[in-house]
Amino acid sequence: MRASRFFISTLKEAPSDAEIVSHKLMMRAGMIKRIGSGIYTYMPMGLRVIRKVEAIVREEMNRAGAIELLMPLVQPAELWQETGRWDKMGAELMRVKDRHGREFAIQPTSEEVITDVVRSEIKSYRQLPLNFYHIQTKFRDERRPRFGLMRGREFTMKDAYSFDRDLAGMQHSYQVMFDAYTRIFTRFGLRFRAVAADNGAIGGTGSHEFHVIASTGEDALVYCPDSDYAANMEAAEALPTGTRAPATAELAKTSTPDASKCEDVAKLLGIDLSKTVKTIALTTEQEADGKVTKQHFMLLLRGDHELNEVKAGKVPGLTGTYRFSTEEEIRDVYGCVPGYLGPIGTKGAVTVVADRTVANMSDFVTGANEAHFHYTGANWGRDMAEPHITADLRNVVEGDQSPDGKGVLAIERGIEVGHVFQLGTAYSESMKATFLDENGKPAPLQMGCYGIGVTRVLGAAIEQNFDDKGIVWPTSIAPFELVLCPMGMDRSELVKEETEKLYAAALEAGIDVIVDDRGLRPGAMFADWELIGVPHRIVIGDRGLKEGQLEYQGRRDTEATNVPLADIVEFIKGKVRQ
Amino acid sequence: MRASRFFISTLKEAPSDAEIVSHKLMMRAGMIKRIGSGIYTYMPMGLRVIRKVEAIVREEMNRAGAIELLMPLVQPAELWQETGRWDKMGAELMRVKDRHGREFAIQPTSEEVITDVVRSEIKSYRQLPLNFYHIQTKFRDERRPRFGLMRGREFTMKDAYSFDRDLAGMQHSYQVMFDAYTRIFTRFGLRFRAVAADNGAIGGTGSHEFHVIASTGEDALVYCPDSDYAANMEAAEALPTGTRAPATAELAKTSTPDASKCEDVAKLLGIDLSKTVKTIALTTEQEADGKVTKQHFMLLLRGDHELNEVKAGKVPGLTGTYRFSTEEEIRDVYGCVPGYLGPIGTKGAVTVVADRTVANMSDFVTGANEAHFHYTGANWGRDMAEPHITADLRNVVEGDQSPDGKGVLAIERGIEVGHVFQLGTAYSESMKATFLDENGKPAPLQMGCYGIGVTRVLGAAIEQNFDDKGIVWPTSIAPFELVLCPMGMDRSELVKEETEKLYAAALEAGIDVIVDDRGLRPGAMFADWELIGVPHRIVIGDRGLKEGQLEYQGRRDTEATNVPLADIVEFIKGKVRQ
Repeated sequence: MRASRFFISTLKEAPSDAEIVSHKLMMRAGMIKRIGSGIYTYMPMGLRVIRKVEAIVREEMNRAGAIELLMPLVQPAELWQETGRWDKMGAELMRVKDRHGREFAIQPTSEEVITDVVRSEIKSYRQLPLNFYHIQTKFRDERRPRFGLMRGREFTMKDAYSFDRDLAGMQHSYQVMFDAYTRIFTRFGLRFRAVAADNGAIGGTGSHEFHVIASTGEDALVYCPDSDYAANMEAAEALPTGTRAPATAELAKTSTPDASKCEDVAKLLGIDLSKTVKTIALTTEQEADGKVTKQHFMLLLRGDHELNEVKAGKVPGLTGTYRFSTEEEIRDVYGCVPGYLGPIGTKGAVTVVADRTVANMSDFVTGANEAHFHYTGANWGRDMAEPHITADLRNVVEGDQSPDGKGVLAIERGIEVGHVFQLGTAYSESMKATFLDENGKPAPLQMGCYGIGVTRVLGAAIEQNFDDKGIVWPTSIAPFELVLCPMGMDRSELVKEETEKLYAAALEAGIDVIVDDRGLRPGAMFADWELIGVPHRIVIGDRGLKEGQLEYQGRRDTEATNVPLADIVEFIKGKVRQ
Repeated sequence: MRASRFFISTLKEAPSDAEIVSHKLMMRAGMIKRIGSGIYTYMPMGLRVIRKVEAIVREEMNRAGAIELLMPLVQPAELWQETGRWDKMGAELMRVKDRHGREFAIQPTSEEVITDVVRSEIKSYRQLPLNFYHIQTKFRDERRPRFGLMRGREFTMKDAYSFDRDLAGMQHSYQVMFDAYTRIFTRFGLRFRAVAADNGAIGGTGSHEFHVIASTGEDALVYCPDSDYAANMEAAEALPTGTRAPATAELAKTSTPDASKCEDVAKLLGIDLSKTVKTIALTTEQEADGKVTKQHFMLLLRGDHELNEVKAGKVPGLTGTYRFSTEEEIRDVYGCVPGYLGPIGTKGAVTVVADRTVANMSDFVTGANEAHFHYTGANWGRDMAEPHITADLRNVVEGDQSPDGKGVLAIERGIEVGHVFQLGTAYSESMKATFLDENGKPAPLQMGCYGIGVTRVLGAAIEQNFDDKGIVWPTSIAPFELVLCPMGMDRSELVKEETEKLYAAALEAGIDVIVDDRGLRPGAMFADWELIGVPHRIVIGDRGLKEGQLEYQGRRDTEATNVPLADIVEFIKGKVRQ
């Protein structure tokens, strides 16, 4: 490519609505252009990166035996009603009516359509397994679109759907996709981590997220540096800390004026926060025969721990929908204002759910169910009944034991760009997608689904790879692998000639090269390519040429390297194919 | 590709809603699957064809200097309101509201968005010319979607937009695109014709349509076999026939009971239809100061000619909106029921517009403005005033003189798959997309737009290329170039071995080959590939192999050819690269 025939448009300053570095740099590098809230035109420079990401995804999906098709963007509401997602998805699902008043969804994913396709195509177990994928525009009507391509409304996603005859087959298909994703993210040249994710109703480890590691990531990734354990915060199991020590302190009701938070209580009493227990009041409502029954739950967590709401949702009685109790409910049930609740002497009917760590505590501090008072020296069994339920309720923290017993946990930040998920028969049952098994009996298809946020990969790659000059693309997804920067092409015949020769040789060698023939002065030219993030640069200048040398500089190099003219193509091939 | 790892699904019968051959064959060959009215999933076999079409389009667009980007599907209403198309487009424009109630269009084309992109990017004439294109999903809410991909609602289109500093530059960009389209359609391997099209307000020859020639085409293409004149029916000029002969007959009012059509009158009077003149009554309405003024027009056409409504719309006074007069208006203005109107003795205020051919007629038959009566022997000037306006009002017919004076016109049927259009400054003016010219003065950008209906190409290609066995794809856009059909692969080691060898050699030679390893019996296998339309087939059988021969058959060949095993790769390369 010649820069003069391409479209390059860089900005000194990012627009004020760009909050994060990837958004700022993509705007400045002229990769995207905002058309509306969360809606972008992918400009020529950005589209090249998207196409490279897509090509890697496509190659590895094909290699893994998945078959490409293309499902429509505008999908009939009827299909979405069959699975109930038409109602469940809420405002994120963009809905549209045609001229006849028929309703459609603009697809955020395609489980319904692929299941509809497959239920009419698959008759027999002999046709299985199958895995279909497409790379398609998606729309999700985010409440607050932001961060450029990281949380846009219109975006590109690769979604794949596997169909198997039984659970074992589905798990095999899942593993094949897991391995393909590992190859894909490796080929992107990004540091990433696959973490076990919560799988909702299906349970088990039937779901993994692929995260690009970046300190600016929205998600906390939990892993064990000494083993292969890795999970996201929702799914990472928090083991109980130690065993319960015998009681040594007396129970004492202590005045803690205005200290409604554990931090304040610990400070006031001069004790460690880890000696306190906090109470979270939850309520569920169930309707039967037109009558609403409420149930109340008291969740207990160590003062320095955080509630994990997904885990709370798995506690018997809390599955389905729970909510935080209202202040009025708390006064009714506990006879006390919030901030001083505790498991000792609770008045109303409350199910006490202790986090595993809390269940192992002794001599702890907890609310006295009386405003401005706490108990110190509280002990299970002695001062109150054992908890009704003991469960994992909290987020893990750094230093927790790894659930696999092979070390302690560390936490890093990540950006989710891929997700593999064992769907089981949820969709095939609601949509009656069955096949005839070996005995000629109809059975529901076992499904898996597998997504990669293609456009999101760009944002994540930049969040991981940038410096104060701009983007630093990994070679495999860079808009160009190599830029040639001739110095004074219009003044020097030699520079012009050698630039053209090198350009032709690089093309011949299969290198994705752009020659900057715009005639800019060196400073502006270099600044553009550093901002855009092309990973390899060769400067062609009169002085160097006279000595038979060209200047190579990698985007992360602090200095240029002189390379003999005769070796340059092999040299750059080595760099690019590294 | 191995058939066992691909998805092949053929049908003996097409679904009943498939009306035309391309729709039927695409459904039967498992290329598309209906999801909703005018909405399809492109199945793996169909998607391969789409990708080949896209690749050819992309290569030739790039070669022509156009730059690829990707504009969003969901586009803010505000942009469409700037050009007035939000209101003008009517129900075909699919509209959607987001969660905040903001309105968006699902793009049918992208003039507004590209003009918005360019108006903020282009500052100076130095940045021009530019041509941006994308290949993107489109939506058009057709009133009656049908014919599969020929008139779907969701479809894929390549649309390009050129930007120039002046008219000459724009016309050059237009020619570059015209030439690129010619290469594209040639590479598709389709018989096609570029025809001048009506250009609406801009006029001139600033618009051409590219049609795939097919007897089932919806459009009539007019061309001169002896010259390069070609136009669509709307744009093809009808020259006047001969010159007006002197009057020889007397004017006579003749009883023509119940003969309200020229055909009936000619039959009744025993004369040729070309001696009759038919009358078409039109009315326009104009509102000023709350008062509606009507104007009435009498259009006169030779009895055997057809009105061309686009041409009628160019008659002074009829530009803008005209309509056919109501029966009530006809009674009021002409004092007569429809069917017997004519230019002699018209009562009301009527503008008489004669087609050029009618203006040259003499001794003709026309309505007497009295029920069940016609005049015979009517002559201009003698029996009535000369027409107020003489204009080209009619469709040309075969045998008409070519407007370039180089022969007579022929007509064939075509399917429109491409359109190039000189937009001028219509969009840049309404959206204030200006640049600074050489004198530093702002000037509106001169635009052109260029579309190819990517998915429609599939339908058109099939309408042109099929037989009673199925589709006959041109090699360049076939889902596979070559199919290998081994006979009894499971029984014969030799067949298996030679098939694998040939498969590897074909891949190595860069041939897009599929090997049918499904283990079907020959009849079913051949029927599938003939239906799917793969253009080249090699049968590998024990008997042939023992004689060192393979059987080649082109999709249009009536018989197979034996090719020596040693020559087969070169032979097939020759066929595929033909």
